[in-house]
Amino acid sequence: MIEHIAIFGTGLLGTSVGLALRAAGFRGTIVGWNRSAEGAATALRMGAIDSIATDPFQVAKESQVVLLAVPIYATLDWMEKLSGILGCEHLVTDVGSTKGQISEAAERLYNTPERAAFLPGHPMAGKERGGAVLGDAGLFRGTVWLFTDDPEAKRSPHSAALVKGWREWVAAMGAKTLDLEPARHDELVGWVSHLPQFVATAMSALLEEEVGDAPELKDVGGRALKEMTRLGASPYSMWRDIAMTNTECVQEALLALEQRLAHLRENLRTPELRDEFEQANRFRKE
Amino acid sequence: MIEHIAIFGTGLLGTSVGLALRAAGFRGTIVGWNRSAEGAATALRMGAIDSIATDPFQVAKESQVVLLAVPIYATLDWMEKLSGILGCEHLVTDVGSTKGQISEAAERLYNTPERAAFLPGHPMAGKERGGAVLGDAGLFRGTVWLFTDDPEAKRSPHSAALVKGWREWVAAMGAKTLDLEPARHDELVGWVSHLPQFVATAMSALLEEEVGDAPELKDVGGRALKEMTRLGASPYSMWRDIAMTNTECVQEALLALEQRLAHLRENLRTPELRDEFEQANRFRKE
Repeated sequence: MIEHIAIFGTGLLGTSVGLALRAAGFRGTIVGWNRSAEGAATALRMGAIDSIATDPFQVAKESQVVLLAVPIYATLDWMEKLSGILGCEHLVTDVGSTKGQISEAAERLYNTPERAAFLPGHPMAGKERGGAVLGDAGLFRGTVWLFTDDPEAKRSPHSAALVKGWREWVAAMGAKTLDLEPARHDELVGWVSHLPQFVATAMSALLEEEVGDAPELKDVGGRALKEMTRLGASPYSMWRDIAMTNTECVQEALLALEQRLAHLRENLRTPELRDEFEQANRFRKE
Repeated sequence: MIEHIAIFGTGLLGTSVGLALRAAGFRGTIVGWNRSAEGAATALRMGAIDSIATDPFQVAKESQVVLLAVPIYATLDWMEKLSGILGCEHLVTDVGSTKGQISEAAERLYNTPERAAFLPGHPMAGKERGGAVLGDAGLFRGTVWLFTDDPEAKRSPHSAALVKGWREWVAAMGAKTLDLEPARHDELVGWVSHLPQFVATAMSALLEEEVGDAPELKDVGGRALKEMTRLGASPYSMWRDIAMTNTECVQEALLALEQRLAHLRENLRTPELRDEFEQANRFRKE
């Protein structure tokens, strides 16, 4: 039933969704819009989109589903702009990594019987580098795609059907779907996704300063170093908005880790170290 | 020319060395000794050793090379014990992760024309879990095996030849060898190996406390979480000695990271965050 999809933002995620939809058998139209013409051209060349939008508002109106695959503030901006021109025959959804502000905007601007539907989404998939050229039809296979939908949403039957249809396409792309409350989502990803990212960034930045020019570095660094700093390559352009929209959760997690590291540092030569290792072992038990 | 090797400690590393030597074409004898009979029996069953030592001192005397593949304090203990019974027809070497105290002991107890040779070694290879059963003939392929040998060592020609021979077997196991000063070794691995381990331990322990019982955890945690906490499974039994023998370097690295995390936490909403990401990106540039 979904036959016309627009993808706004043909970076890594947007391009991967286009490719994954095709791989899952989607036969309708996919029109792409991207801030940089180069990214859109790459997505087109890779077959992730059929054409490039010249007028994104016109394209949104002609689509049943608009997927916003841009950083969070850009998502919020599109949500404002699109809410005024789309109606109950449309679904807007997103892939943003924080859901508090997006869910608030969805409640304010969407999800009444007359308005377009908005389904807040967050695929737990990505790479440490972005860009259409890294787009991958298999990016979502075996991953989880979180939703923080509003169970109180009063949608038109048509909108509700689009929401159901999009969920089915997400499953067809190979992802398991899971619904969370927006606040619980932001708290949980603060611990298990944002904390690891900011730690990798801080550790990479520190190591660049301390040993970045050591001639032996390339030889001495093993798998542990590569893994623990891989996310150091992640772009500020994406993480700025996450830091801005999940500040409290991330601050709480960082402060807790600072205290834990200090405790470990003060106990390198005491039996407390055993307790820390045993507690860590429990987290990784198989 | 090396035909008789003893491996003291048939855990992950000792067993892997036995298997890798065989895979590289070593045709001589390999006798194993292990604190627990079970670990020795596993190594024997896997073909990493030909027989299990009942009298390790007798086996050491009958070997040309004794590889100590035990935690660092046990290594220092064996170094003391073996120095009294071995002479210039023997080489003792090790795989310990810190080299300061081991190099000091080597200078004090070995490496004169009358005494056995000691070559301090550190393969940059391992797994987050130990044990003979995880032994792997390919563990050292493509990795670096560090040495912190003493260029002033006054060895007998026979001992010197054994050192050269062992280095050749290390290369045959697929590792690139690299020589460092002991103090430089401990400083560098403090940053690129020990810091990542202790961060993974602290983060795993923290997450066990904060979200260890969250029912959504298994679904929400993605690749970043798995990578950043993999080393949380590492055993205290091995890391205790590393913490004890490289305390200052590890403390310095941990304190620096705590400060860096605090700086990042205080700047989640300022342009300073961009500088941190850009500095981190430089460390991971390809």
